[in-house]
Amino acid sequence: MKKVGLALLGLGTVGGGTYRIIKNNHDMIAKSEGVDLQVLCVLEKNEARAKELGVDLSIVGTDIDKVINNPEISIVAEFFGGIEPARTFLIKSLLAGKSVVTANKELIAKHWHELEEAAKKGKAGLYFEASCVGGVPIIRTLTESMQANNILSIKGIINGTTNYILTKMAESGQSYESALKEAQDLGYAEADPSADVDGYDASYKISILSSLAFRTKVPLEKVYREGISKVTAEDIAYGKEFGLTLKLLGIAKMTDGKIDVRVHPVFIPDLHPLASVRGSFNAVHLVGDAVGDIMLYGRGAGDLPTGSAIVSDIVFAATKKKHKYSPFVNSGKHLTDQGFIKDFKSEYYIRMTVNDKSGMLAKITSAFGKQNISITTVTQKAGTDIVPLVFITHETYESSIKKALAGIVKSDGVVSIDNVIRVERD
Amino acid sequence: MKKVGLALLGLGTVGGGTYRIIKNNHDMIAKSEGVDLQVLCVLEKNEARAKELGVDLSIVGTDIDKVINNPEISIVAEFFGGIEPARTFLIKSLLAGKSVVTANKELIAKHWHELEEAAKKGKAGLYFEASCVGGVPIIRTLTESMQANNILSIKGIINGTTNYILTKMAESGQSYESALKEAQDLGYAEADPSADVDGYDASYKISILSSLAFRTKVPLEKVYREGISKVTAEDIAYGKEFGLTLKLLGIAKMTDGKIDVRVHPVFIPDLHPLASVRGSFNAVHLVGDAVGDIMLYGRGAGDLPTGSAIVSDIVFAATKKKHKYSPFVNSGKHLTDQGFIKDFKSEYYIRMTVNDKSGMLAKITSAFGKQNISITTVTQKAGTDIVPLVFITHETYESSIKKALAGIVKSDGVVSIDNVIRVERD
Repeated sequence: MKKVGLALLGLGTVGGGTYRIIKNNHDMIAKSEGVDLQVLCVLEKNEARAKELGVDLSIVGTDIDKVINNPEISIVAEFFGGIEPARTFLIKSLLAGKSVVTANKELIAKHWHELEEAAKKGKAGLYFEASCVGGVPIIRTLTESMQANNILSIKGIINGTTNYILTKMAESGQSYESALKEAQDLGYAEADPSADVDGYDASYKISILSSLAFRTKVPLEKVYREGISKVTAEDIAYGKEFGLTLKLLGIAKMTDGKIDVRVHPVFIPDLHPLASVRGSFNAVHLVGDAVGDIMLYGRGAGDLPTGSAIVSDIVFAATKKKHKYSPFVNSGKHLTDQGFIKDFKSEYYIRMTVNDKSGMLAKITSAFGKQNISITTVTQKAGTDIVPLVFITHETYESSIKKALAGIVKSDGVVSIDNVIRVERD
Repeated sequence: MKKVGLALLGLGTVGGGTYRIIKNNHDMIAKSEGVDLQVLCVLEKNEARAKELGVDLSIVGTDIDKVINNPEISIVAEFFGGIEPARTFLIKSLLAGKSVVTANKELIAKHWHELEEAAKKGKAGLYFEASCVGGVPIIRTLTESMQANNILSIKGIINGTTNYILTKMAESGQSYESALKEAQDLGYAEADPSADVDGYDASYKISILSSLAFRTKVPLEKVYREGISKVTAEDIAYGKEFGLTLKLLGIAKMTDGKIDVRVHPVFIPDLHPLASVRGSFNAVHLVGDAVGDIMLYGRGAGDLPTGSAIVSDIVFAATKKKHKYSPFVNSGKHLTDQGFIKDFKSEYYIRMTVNDKSGMLAKITSAFGKQNISITTVTQKAGTDIVPLVFITHETYESSIKKALAGIVKSDGVVSIDNVIRVERD
């Protein structure tokens, strides 16, 4: 049986989960995969954590050189998160010929090329299934199952916190603030929720996933990003009337060789497979020119689900004779600006408040018409003096919507433009 | 660039789709995977098909020896379906050291051990992603992404024809016969629909998938099988009232080291992720002890989706230095009878017709009670003289239900037991 020596950098949630899987499922993995996984070194300042997990304290320390200089360690799994010291430690490990397995989406999104170069130099492997959508095997699917496909689009609910909040708002009519508070109380959201609710976390993931899908580097800076804090229960309720469900999606599309990549709240049809993904679950929907539509669904976070992806990568790395690199990443050949769509097309949901007087609707639709925006649905609810007016447009350019709304907001009788949310039906 | 010589056995729907993918996406695959895929031989009696696809007729024939004796052919992809001549041709190919890629679920379900043995002898690979759920990478997920998990259950909508029929019945209230007729007119069902509607196709697939999930051979004979022909629109409508959706599922569960494996119609909660899988789409839901719940969704059939899985396997086989075998398959070590659950537990939906007279409900519930079956829900609709009575039970043994119903059907006032359908909530 092949002995595989491991170092774990960090024993937080995912590091702890990984340790427990390796301990509890060791014999099953040995029997079915032919690898005897042995944790030989753990970097963790908090000894209490190590004790709680039953880690032999003699292998716990803080010195990366203990890892680098141990020839019996062939795989380093990193759980620090953030850029430093993870970046420095992993580059050192790769250059020393140790394969790296990481859940660190920020590091991969921002420093993939450096790590990939170090991996090639060290003839080591770089694996990061756990960095995107926890235990869901989306990265393995992209690299090992979609080889026959030109991927046309990838769309995902890739942040569990925001999906939990939006599901709560939809199912109980709660406000954003109250649903966020509940998510915080349950530990689904951080005290400072910005990384989740403002879409940063999702933007790291869609940058990584779209790079693999389109086989070209999609830099983080190219990801348009908008969070969910402006979404109201009212918007979600209007969407329901139109057969639409609101989700925060990471979206990347390839159209005529140009990429359109973004994270923002979006209305999708109730019958779209992503619409039924509830609570803290995640899912990624792909369209390939051969495979058609596929979707992968599961837990995007958590100690054991993410640990499952980490251990899968460890086994994959340990049993591969040859590592697979992503040449587009470390070639430094980023797409030039022409490779990205600047003014993308979408349908739009627009909610505004207007004075309840005759001729308002005609005035506003005519302003849309001037920008060649046609309207599919309009709803006006009864009110006193001021009334809400909700439009859904046909597909149009972002720039046209902006121009039209800039004019409309200044019109006599228009009180406010309350929300503008994209609608995607494909 | 590594040249990879291929033989295609058959140019039917999936063979043709595979040929088109290899032709159309050849350069993309070469660039990103480093393999130059070349079709060097095609076995197909129908020359017209070959012509239509633009295959060079000089490579088209019917003689397997032309494949076996060509040292430039390293991978054989089979699309004949059925047992012979596929079995003989593939064993010959494997023994000659050529890796085999196949979509043939019946062959894998019935002769996996022979093929696996031949593969080992020939130091060749055996790949069959396309045999289960078309383009959905469920086999790669089980073998390359779930290594860290004890799989606790696998449940799937793994037959598109029956899912199309059940979706039609649910959404338009059509009868089974009329929905089947529509599926036949659209080409989703065969003139003789038995392989699909009686659950044979699904039983091949659940035998393969559960073997991989539980890392032990689950022989086809152990799969309990029941089709959808007894399902009525009335049953589906009653289910709706209880928040339940009817699906034909392949189900395999591991409980206390014993396997429970079956194909039958089953009511699942409307909010279960499998419930929203509509029309001819397929999906497989897994529970692992680390990963928790995951689901993969997509097209289970069709030329390009299944071709996508075939080409993925071809690339996987071409780039592996070392093939992965399933030792449980060719060891001949089938589980003994004790390894399987004979009397499985489930909740039950029971619809019967009774005379509308007082005391009937008490008599029937008391008969259930004698078998320790407790009832969660009962519905009685108004009628004249005879009325429908619908029960949902708590979890109970199959054998208890049979005993109870054998008594009830003979009771005075009971006209008929109209349907008995399992209910699974997990």
